[in-house]
Order: sequence, then C-alpha cells, then structure tokens
Amino acid sequence: MAKKRIFSGMRPTGKLHLGHLVGALSNWAKLQDEYECFFMVADWHALMSEYENPADLKAHILDNVIDWLACGINPERSVIFIQSEIPEHLELYFILSLITPLGLLERCPTYKEQLRQIDNRDLSTYAFLGYPVLQAADILLYKADSVPVGEDQLPHLELTRQIVRKFNHLYKTECFPEPKALLAQTTRLLGLDGRKMSKSYNNYIALSDTSEIIRKKVQGMFTDPERIRVADRGHPDKCNVFSYYAAFFPQAKQHAHERCAKAMIGCTDCKKELAALLLDLLAPIQEKRQALQKDKNYLQEILSAGRQKASLAAGKTISQVKKLLNV
Amino acid sequence: MAKKRIFSGMRPTGKLHLGHLVGALSNWAKLQDEYECFFMVADWHALMSEYENPADLKAHILDNVIDWLACGINPERSVIFIQSEIPEHLELYFILSLITPLGLLERCPTYKEQLRQIDNRDLSTYAFLGYPVLQAADILLYKADSVPVGEDQLPHLELTRQIVRKFNHLYKTECFPEPKALLAQTTRLLGLDGRKMSKSYNNYIALSDTSEIIRKKVQGMFTDPERIRVADRGHPDKCNVFSYYAAFFPQAKQHAHERCAKAMIGCTDCKKELAALLLDLLAPIQEKRQALQKDKNYLQEILSAGRQKASLAAGKTISQVKKLLNV
Repeated sequence: MAKKRIFSGMRPTGKLHLGHLVGALSNWAKLQDEYECFFMVADWHALMSEYENPADLKAHILDNVIDWLACGINPERSVIFIQSEIPEHLELYFILSLITPLGLLERCPTYKEQLRQIDNRDLSTYAFLGYPVLQAADILLYKADSVPVGEDQLPHLELTRQIVRKFNHLYKTECFPEPKALLAQTTRLLGLDGRKMSKSYNNYIALSDTSEIIRKKVQGMFTDPERIRVADRGHPDKCNVFSYYAAFFPQAKQHAHERCAKAMIGCTDCKKELAALLLDLLAPIQEKRQALQKDKNYLQEILSAGRQKASLAAGKTISQVKKLLNV
Repeated sequence: MAKKRIFSGMRPTGKLHLGHLVGALSNWAKLQDEYECFFMVADWHALMSEYENPADLKAHILDNVIDWLACGINPERSVIFIQSEIPEHLELYFILSLITPLGLLERCPTYKEQLRQIDNRDLSTYAFLGYPVLQAADILLYKADSVPVGEDQLPHLELTRQIVRKFNHLYKTECFPEPKALLAQTTRLLGLDGRKMSKSYNNYIALSDTSEIIRKKVQGMFTDPERIRVADRGHPDKCNVFSYYAAFFPQAKQHAHERCAKAMIGCTDCKKELAALLLDLLAPIQEKRQALQKDKNYLQEILSAGRQKASLAAGKTISQVKKLLNV
C-alpha cells in the first residue's frame, strides 16, 4: 500500500532554534519513516509579516534548509521545496479565495490573536487576512492526507476542511481529501527568560550558536525564583531549566529532578550540565551544518530536485482544479 | 518617441452588446492609433462573481474576443490576451496584497455599492474584497501609462495609484509609474426598458443578435411616456429610443429629434428607422464575426501570439518586483 502523504511547512523569518527542533524538526524527521513527506519553506507566508523588511529572506531560506537537513530531514525520502518557486500555490490560493467567506477569516481566532499580539508590524493588510487560505492551498495542492499540527493550529486546519467541503460540494467533485490533524506529541519550549520563545525577545538558543554562546545563554536562564540559596530545595516543575531537561533529555530528567528537589546540586552547576548536554546534542547537527554550508551546489541540487517533484504534484492538482472551473 | 502604453480589460461574463460597443470597444478601437494597447480578457475577475457557475466561461471568452476583433481591435497593433494564461497576474496580485491596507478595500465605494446591489450572487468572499488589488496588478504588470476609465471606475484607479506610491516608497524604487485616468468620452447606454443595461434584466441588444431579434427588441423599447397619440408632440430628450440615436448616429440625431418634437413621426416608425440604422451599423461587425467563427485556428493564433507578448512584458516586471522582495 502506498504511504500516506504529509504536508508541513515553516516560515523562513530567522535562524532556527531549539524550539523548532523540539516543536517540529524532530517530529518531521520521525514522520519520514511512515509517511511520504512534503516539507515547504513558506516564504510567501514569511512575507506576510516581513514585507517591510525582506532583505534577509533569501539568506534565511538557505540557512533554514541547511538546518532541516542537519536535523535529519532526508532529501532522498522527502520533498523539500520553496513555496514561491511553485507558482501553483498562488493560483490555488486565488481559486480557493473565490469561495472562502470573508466572515470565516475575520472570525478566525488566530487572526484576531495575532492582530492583538504583534504590535511591531503592520498586519492590517489584505494578504494577512488570507493567511489561512494560503495554508489551505499549500496543503491541498499536494492532497495531503494529514498535517502535523500543534493545538493552536487546529482552527486553521478546520478552515481548510471547511474550504474542502465547500469546494467539493460546489463543483460536484471529490478532488480534495479533507486533511486530518496529526497532533504532534511535542512540547512547547519557553524562551530562556521564561517568556514565549521569540525572535524579537532574542531569548532562544539557535541551532547554529557557538559553544561559547550556548554556555553563556544557558548560564543566563531564569530558574526557580523560590530557590534563593544552594541549600534551599528547588521546585524543578516550576523551573524553566528543568523544562529543557524534560524536553530534550528524558534519560537525564529523573536525575536532574531529584538532585534539584533534594538540593543536591546548585543552579549554576545544573545549568553547566544542561549546557554540556545541549552541546552534545547539537554537535552532530552543527557538524553537518558546516559540511552543508561548504557545499552550496549540493544544496541547490536538493532544492532543484525538490522543486521538480513538488511542481509535478502541484501541476496535476491545478490542471484538475482549472478544468472544474473552466479556466 | 515610443508610444505611451494603455491597459484595459473586460470580464467575459456573457454576450457583448451595444453597451460594450459604445462604452468601450469603439473607444478601444480608436485608442489603437495613438497608443500601444494591451487588451485583456479578465477571466479571473469574471470568476469573482461567477464562481458558482463557471460552465460557460470558456465559451464567453472566445465569443468576446471574436466581438473585439469584429469591432476593430487589431491584433497586429494591440496585444489581446487572457488573464489566467499569464500566471504573473496572480503573483503580482499577491505581492501587492502584502502592502494593501484592509481598510482601503473595505471602504472602497464600488465595493460597498456592489455588495448592496448584487443580490443574486454571494459576493461576501475573500477574493471579491480584493477585486481592485487584482485590477492594480493587471495595470501595473504592464506598467501602463494610462487606463481608459469611466467616472465610476475612478476610485479603483485611485486605489492603484495609492498602492504604487506605497510600493515605490517601501522598496525605494521607481519600479511602477502611477497610471493616469483617460476619461473616455463615452455615453452610458440604458437598457431597452430604460433600466441599467444588464445581463440579468435581459434588456440589451447583443452584437450577435439576428436582424429579426434586433427589430423585435427595438420595437419593444420604452419611449417617451408622455406621448400618448401620434399627434402628440414628443420629448426626445426624455426618450430612451432617442438616446440610442444620440449614442450611435450623430448624423441622424438632429433629424430624429426634430420629427419627434414636432410630431412628424410616430414612435413605431421612429423605432423602425432606428432598427434599420442599427442593422446597418452591425452588418460589417456581424459579417466579420461570422468569418472569425469559422476560423477557430486563426483565433487561437491571435490568442497565442497575445499570450507570448503579454508574457514577455509581465515576466520582466515580475522579475524586477521579486528582486526587490528578495524572492
């Protein structure tokens, strides 16, 4: 039986960090065993928020793809491609937007939340309102069976499913399957300062950070605020440093928990150990990164092969859709 | 000196009629002497309202292009092409939508008017709100110097100009010229029943109507309601039949006016004369139509040559734009 198909993507808005690793990339790498995977660099989506300052976009794209490969995304098994290189995305986006009720977008909970939360960018544009329609087009262009999502992305996927039902009904077709949510068992990692991890807070460890910077960043992490002296018993379940142990090092988690709760280790030493573990974790990734950075031709070959494969699948879908609409 | 460039388009939503002839096509034909013209079949725009029933779209496209040619649009001088065949339209549409404030579209007077007026179609879609953004993309893709518009289209053109200013400012470029309005000296023809000429009212004379149908339609036209008997003096300036004389037959206008005002002719005879004049006017158009309908290959050649020329111009613009946005 043919493998089921998965689609996922990531916006190239900056360096990838530990949050991306634990929140998406480790999961993507595993999914490759079971699924045919399409992984997309969502540069059009990135421009929806970064349109005022697109200078670094191309650099981010290449840097992110290097990270994907370094984290185990395998171009022999999965299709890796750039959204803007496949013109069918915008065609399907437009076609779906013909049938998408405006109210559905205006009422979308993530839309309202982002308009409220993000105040250093002007998101009151026509394009940004259509964010989930472009996502729907991305997914449907490849007729993905499932989409790995976090809880917060469920409303967008439901919107895709609504669009599918309307399209299939209106044009009396079964052209598009309703994509299923594949709720990823991933942890949402907080930033080094305990706030949401974010580029604008600069509170993350990038996958490409040097050993020195990683040690320094970990040393600066916020810990249990109730533990004042080394002799005080800590509360690991309230400590952000411990959450990093829990997220990345299940085998060291128990031991770290115990020593903190029994005041057998101080925060400084606990962080030193965490930094050492993180360096071990990132060492093979960084080694692969460096090799890839030296071989830009190989990277271009991968992206070109990915473009061809994506283009083939996208072209099939769009011809089918255009036939239904008589264009 | 190179000719200035003009862009215009028409939505292929049905048969073309006398309103199109007097409101656009005669003007287009004349503009060819002075300008380099790009004339586009706006099928994406047509789908914005006709998406629920796209079955006849392809037939309308070919039928309309035949009418254009029959009315004197010359494929040797002007570029005739189909919007959906040039993927750059949707690319530029998307890129412009990144910087287009939502409020500008929501407040657009034609948008609010159409939502109010058109009640047999669901226009509360995401795409329809972006109608003027796609128009802006159409115009700017060819860097048109001027756009022939009616008064009612001025707000859309102003929106295009606002988008140009924002784009050029944001990306520190002079990539796009601000297109100028070329206010056409055309009359807005009313329907046979004195209401707005409209497909849904079926109150028009199609360019392809047979002589018999044209005579019948003209005979059924509403005239001066205050003129009851043939002996009553008529009020040609209040008579819809006279407005057709005025729009199409300036040389016969004076005479028709006089005979009506002096009760020298009855409405039935006046309409008979109008029908005869219209048949004369349409005879060469219909003759050319028939020849073109027999030669589908020639039509395809024209559209294929148009696509190539449009594609060349569009490709240049989009590369320039993509470079500015780093995609």
